[in-house]
Amino acid sequence: MNVKILGTGRYLPKTLLHSHELEARFGFEPGSIMRLNGVETRHVANQRAGETTSQMCTWAAQEALANADLAGEDLDLIIFASAGQEQALPDTAPFVQAKLGLGDSGITCFSVNSSCLSFLTALDIVSSFIQCGRYQQILIVCAEISYASLNPNDKKLYTLFGDAAAAAVVGVTPDCESSKIHRAHFSTFGEAAHMAEILGGGTRQHPNCPNIRFEDNTFRMDGRKLLRYSLLKASTIFEQIWPGLSTGATDIDWVIPHQPSRQGMLALARYFPVEKTIRTLQHYGNCVSVSLPLSLDQAIRSKQLQRGDRVLLFGTGAGLTLGGMVLTY
Amino acid sequence: MNVKILGTGRYLPKTLLHSHELEARFGFEPGSIMRLNGVETRHVANQRAGETTSQMCTWAAQEALANADLAGEDLDLIIFASAGQEQALPDTAPFVQAKLGLGDSGITCFSVNSSCLSFLTALDIVSSFIQCGRYQQILIVCAEISYASLNPNDKKLYTLFGDAAAAAVVGVTPDCESSKIHRAHFSTFGEAAHMAEILGGGTRQHPNCPNIRFEDNTFRMDGRKLLRYSLLKASTIFEQIWPGLSTGATDIDWVIPHQPSRQGMLALARYFPVEKTIRTLQHYGNCVSVSLPLSLDQAIRSKQLQRGDRVLLFGTGAGLTLGGMVLTY
Repeated sequence: MNVKILGTGRYLPKTLLHSHELEARFGFEPGSIMRLNGVETRHVANQRAGETTSQMCTWAAQEALANADLAGEDLDLIIFASAGQEQALPDTAPFVQAKLGLGDSGITCFSVNSSCLSFLTALDIVSSFIQCGRYQQILIVCAEISYASLNPNDKKLYTLFGDAAAAAVVGVTPDCESSKIHRAHFSTFGEAAHMAEILGGGTRQHPNCPNIRFEDNTFRMDGRKLLRYSLLKASTIFEQIWPGLSTGATDIDWVIPHQPSRQGMLALARYFPVEKTIRTLQHYGNCVSVSLPLSLDQAIRSKQLQRGDRVLLFGTGAGLTLGGMVLTY
Repeated sequence: MNVKILGTGRYLPKTLLHSHELEARFGFEPGSIMRLNGVETRHVANQRAGETTSQMCTWAAQEALANADLAGEDLDLIIFASAGQEQALPDTAPFVQAKLGLGDSGITCFSVNSSCLSFLTALDIVSSFIQCGRYQQILIVCAEISYASLNPNDKKLYTLFGDAAAAAVVGVTPDCESSKIHRAHFSTFGEAAHMAEILGGGTRQHPNCPNIRFEDNTFRMDGRKLLRYSLLKASTIFEQIWPGLSTGATDIDWVIPHQPSRQGMLALARYFPVEKTIRTLQHYGNCVSVSLPLSLDQAIRSKQLQRGDRVLLFGTGAGLTLGGMVLTY
């Protein structure tokens, strides 16, 4: 598919929370959070100061549009691709459209959700849309605000996540340029759906249920079981993404993974050299659906990723889905 | 696009609630709900009896697969396309996959949300996927359970909605058949996003917020404003969906609309002849994202819609989005 990432952007909330602050607050041993989760700092959204899901998306989108040298009016589709919507109805994409000053533009909006892989799913959809000529210039926005969904009694999970937004503008590759989405593959295993979940917040346990418990609205994960399950499937799925990938990434310049946890990053290092891998976990934490586009933006921002480089985007997401995409940036 | 709806299915909850029961319960004048909303009966899901979002999707999907003469294993993609997820994380598609007995199949799953238009958005995505050869045989499932999100003090809205699930299996048109998706168009106006909404249930007002009010987690709509806004835009958008559509549907055999309300159906009747229009509002109420696929299934089930007929699928959805698709069934 002759599809090009025209520009990316991000928004990091102003409040930076160091792990040593969390360690002091909870009476943990200094350095223990970094050893446990690999996270030193994370940003935390202050919604009262305007750092809402749709507003953070908007700031990230403005940066992505500027980097793509495009105006909002040049877009014909806006996709919000994240696990957490701003409100139950409608989905978040129209709110981003309105905050971009495009509320009467008619630009098509919808949302996509495959938890941590939402950005990759959106990019896969966009790739087919562009190939078919259905849409030409598309904005994908992701934002997550996780803290309200975390249980302070669960030390491991409470100290793992960070808030952020990221965006990408995607379009047709101009003639004579090499940008291309080569392949994408996603495998979902619903039998593992309950290994990482928030039980409440939907029709199963509506927020107005009288007997709903605090814990039902917070994230729980059996990390060890999830990692073991993922590792059993990984080699087969790497081969489906890109033949030869399970035995090395010799024809891949950069590996940009979701940043699930210290253990997840260590597992990935069995497959791919650390010097080829973009890592944002230490500074931003696990940002759910934002980790992938944020790490992509980081690779571009740091000038590590250059036009013509071949990139593997890969991740696991609650569902459980393992999936990835190989593209030439 | 040589895309064919191979089979459809539905699930209607066992509890049928007559408007005269609601009228008696709330002390309304007999016949007033039918006059107000055009709804005589609606089905209401009993989650304790197993009628959950993912289970209703599964029953609808089994019927759609049987009508398509396919097994679950023949699918390569499952899309949950609705406004209301079963739980906050993960999205509902993997739960449906697991309940179909495909939990270890690896079949790709994700969710799409454009509120009442989610089914059409999914069909548009699927259309490009099939055209590009990205996926071949796709299940789209929709389910809504609305009652917990309705405020009993709001007579008009509380008596308008119904619960249901519907599904469609979509694939490549065999040679020598005429099934085809001709065009689709969606216009979103984010400036009207707050005209129909549920403020809570997301990051804006997390279910664990201590000061959240019952009303914040229920649906509110300025129906009159929304209808006026939609009517201002309708003619232009009809022309974008299918040239000539705003002045008649002479080359369309069937109009299958979303079923928003009595007023919405009356407004549609200004454009399209009633005898060409499939109506399910009276028996099932407004089923949010399910109304469109349920009405499509109804048209097929009743043998009104025949292979080779040209169909307009059209609707409005919170966002605000107006959109439609023309296909040859």
